[in-house]
Amino acid sequence: MPRRLKIIVAYDGAAFAGWQSQLHRKTVQDELERAFQKIGGEGFRVHGAGRTDTGVHAFGQCAHVDLPTRKMSGERWMSALNAILPATIRVLRARYVSQNFHARFSAKGQLYRYRIWAAPILPPFEFGRAWHISSPVDVDLLKAAGEKFVGKHDFAAFAANRGKKEDSTVRTIRSIRVRNKGPLVAIEVAGDGFLYKMVRMMVGAMVRVALSKAEVDEIVSRLKSARAAGLRFVAPAEGLCLVKIWY
Amino acid sequence: MPRRLKIIVAYDGAAFAGWQSQLHRKTVQDELERAFQKIGGEGFRVHGAGRTDTGVHAFGQCAHVDLPTRKMSGERWMSALNAILPATIRVLRARYVSQNFHARFSAKGQLYRYRIWAAPILPPFEFGRAWHISSPVDVDLLKAAGEKFVGKHDFAAFAANRGKKEDSTVRTIRSIRVRNKGPLVAIEVAGDGFLYKMVRMMVGAMVRVALSKAEVDEIVSRLKSARAAGLRFVAPAEGLCLVKIWY
Repeated sequence: MPRRLKIIVAYDGAAFAGWQSQLHRKTVQDELERAFQKIGGEGFRVHGAGRTDTGVHAFGQCAHVDLPTRKMSGERWMSALNAILPATIRVLRARYVSQNFHARFSAKGQLYRYRIWAAPILPPFEFGRAWHISSPVDVDLLKAAGEKFVGKHDFAAFAANRGKKEDSTVRTIRSIRVRNKGPLVAIEVAGDGFLYKMVRMMVGAMVRVALSKAEVDEIVSRLKSARAAGLRFVAPAEGLCLVKIWY
Repeated sequence: MPRRLKIIVAYDGAAFAGWQSQLHRKTVQDELERAFQKIGGEGFRVHGAGRTDTGVHAFGQCAHVDLPTRKMSGERWMSALNAILPATIRVLRARYVSQNFHARFSAKGQLYRYRIWAAPILPPFEFGRAWHISSPVDVDLLKAAGEKFVGKHDFAAFAANRGKKEDSTVRTIRSIRVRNKGPLVAIEVAGDGFLYKMVRMMVGAMVRVALSKAEVDEIVSRLKSARAAGLRFVAPAEGLCLVKIWY
């Protein structure tokens, strides 16, 4: 009988030093493991699908945990965890899955949303939840730039080096949708997987085009070059949100 | 030549111990006065239209300040203030007005919005910005309860005693609008003026009706009694937002 619990988690990234466990810093993984241990004893390890950075939010992060017994239902685990967790982390769903399921390795795709507030003044309620750009952003140019990323490419030029060699830097972007309503611009990026800081570097490049600081063709040539490009144009973390993981 | 500056201010109430200046606590008034003083020297006093409590938000708080000179335009004051203020306070507009204008005493009416999140789980992004009610709220009952407040009444039973005698506890509610979209319920209350904690006590009474803990008639009889009723059913501060002041 499987004792692997799959959980869907939302969190306000502003409150944490990212997802991944760290010494002396408050992370989402640590908070979750502490909550599991408070309920069920020692030794719980929470495996997340995506390691979001400091400041990055999640509506639908996914994780799995192996439990010692199956005495409690998914529903009860959810309530018990939410009663312990800070209000800035919520478990939205919890159910038992097969031992073959792995939050990270079974993932078939991810959806990220990036929010930009393009107006002279950032409202207090958007602080920490959007990238504030004081000048107007050309949404048509943003769309044109985004289209260049769609499809299968080597994204080496749109990834930060995490200090380890990635097996492959080839990824497939399924779609990029750009919508705007007043000063708010939302960019939704769906793909089979993402390299470290990849969405933020893609958004950074798109915004440079939309602000007429670069040509659309620059994106094409950077993709073709497949060479690491440094961290000059990384969009800030607070605008990014992990919306969904597909399995 | 008038040297009175009128400003419209938005703030995230979660970050402050309310509007009004306090010793040893961070308030919106203190932050504004500090910013004015950093730019223009000593002795600025910011007069606000409404003294919002700890946790209460504002999209359109209004205030006035008397300046020693008129060397700087409203626009420049706005930019200079926003450069100094924390991101959780923003000056949205600033312009010179007649010396007859008073942010508080010239006000003809105010609009408040109260947000409720009615669902088992409060999303992290709504924390501090809505009243979380786990059970479903009957919107029709909420509307029926709200209608009882509309018009001119003695609101003594819907006011907290601030330790001083109010001149009069008679107020006119122009309109109450209730809207809902999924788990979010928004109550908009427009009136010529409000007593201390009045909106939150009105919302508290409305929600009791909507959760079938009280009858609609209870509101009518409490209004008729015009007797102070204690603080038992005050809706929490975090759901409240001062949206607009009319002059």
